[in-house]
Amino acid sequence: MLGIDDFAVIRFRDERDWAQFHTPKDLALGLGIEAGELAELFLWKKEDEIRAALQDSDFRQRLGEEMADVLVFLLYLAEAAGIDLGAAVESKMVVNAEKYPVEKARGSAEKWDRL
Amino acid sequence: MLGIDDFAVIRFRDERDWAQFHTPKDLALGLGIEAGELAELFLWKKEDEIRAALQDSDFRQRLGEEMADVLVFLLYLAEAAGIDLGAAVESKMVVNAEKYPVEKARGSAEKWDRL
Amino acid sequence: MLGIDDFAVIRFRDERDWAQFHTPKDLALGLGIEAGELAELFLWKKEDEIRAALQDSDFRQRLGEEMADVLVFLLYLAEAAGIDLGAAVESKMVVNAEKYPVEKARGSAEKWDRL
Amino acid sequence: MLGIDDFAVIRFRDERDWAQFHTPKDLALGLGIEAGELAELFLWKKEDEIRAALQDSDFRQRLGEEMADVLVFLLYLAEAAGIDLGAAVESKMVVNAEKYPVEKARGSAEKWDRL
Repeated sequence: MLGIDDFAVIRFRDERDWAQFHTPKDLALGLGIEAGELAELFLWKKEDEIRAALQDSDFRQRLGEEMADVLVFLLYLAEAAGIDLGAAVESKMVVNAEKYPVEKARGSAEKWDRL
Repeated sequence: MLGIDDFAVIRFRDERDWAQFHTPKDLALGLGIEAGELAELFLWKKEDEIRAALQDSDFRQRLGEEMADVLVFLLYLAEAAGIDLGAAVESKMVVNAEKYPVEKARGSAEKWDRL
Repeated sequence: MLGIDDFAVIRFRDERDWAQFHTPKDLALGLGIEAGELAELFLWKKEDEIRAALQDSDFRQRLGEEMADVLVFLLYLAEAAGIDLGAAVESKMVVNAEKYPVEKARGSAEKWDRL
Repeated sequence: MLGIDDFAVIRFRDERDWAQFHTPKDLALGLGIEAGELAELFLWKKEDEIRAALQDSDFRQRLGEEMADVLVFLLYLAEAAGIDLGAAVESKMVVNAEKYPVEKARGSAEKWDRL
């Protein structure tokens, strides 16, 4: 079980009085921006270069930070929209299990509508 | 404390033998794709339309699913790269607290390098 | 008719011997990164703040640069994949005209499958 | 010289009275969504699978459509913000030439601030 201190993230926001800026649309926009910053860590790198980078502690630090940024925006959005992220993941895994039955999806990278 | 059943997500992946496709670069690409699908729920909607949509259970269901998709890709990437997401968020909040001191950042939407 | 000097962009690439890095997947990843950087110019800004920013020559300069970055990646991808962008737009407008007939789409922000 | 019929794109928009929805923020959001849809064509595919897909006319058709969607959003944004895209690319190439001098950037995938 992964534990995320979402209260600390919301407290951080509230200490800075940022909820006023956190419309769902801006948070969705921000999520895409953060996803882009994360992606930049892998841009132009071949698979073996990425494997090597993942051994480097500076790179791992930056990757952790970019992943945290994505997650923080997701937590902000969950709070702004009143979504329970833990329940949403559980519920999505049920949907995914129907879309991707083991016998059909095993070893395949096809999207569910092409399986 | 938010609890995410990351074991269930990785088990789901492994039952389908999908780890072979999960290079960090593809997962980063997928994260951007999922962020885009989430964003589509808000596209063209005015603030009051978004507020109304958030009262609608179908819309909330879809939003929860798209947010879960983003989080699932983040969990896949955390597993592929060996990153502890809970620790990454904690550590990033410390960095953010330095970048955005309360007295400077309070009520401001400026980026840290313009505060 | 908008004229884009795509030859200059490809010459720029070739003078730096960059085609070796330009796999379609990396270019797609880069496109998302650049779209994120462009989006950052609008993040947290209310509509009237954006309107004001668009009167500011520094902001316009930065916006133009980010839009150019997106377009340059699109040109790189067109070259790598052998796609004629001008023809692709023309052809897509025909498809769009069928998906969004004037009488149904007029004044509506709905997606074609919900019109 | 690449010619893009931007007038046809704007006429298409105006026949449907869509300018009212086209705030710069929504167009930036839409650009990210379209970049995500384009990226989906390459997700999970190995380099040789992408090379094979690029020989397939259906795949090329879909790729052209997704690239056109990105470009159309860029044209909408250029119109909404009053940016001359052709001039923006020309001007950005001058900036890029300074950031990436041939002698330093040749054969390197490093970002300008690490060259």
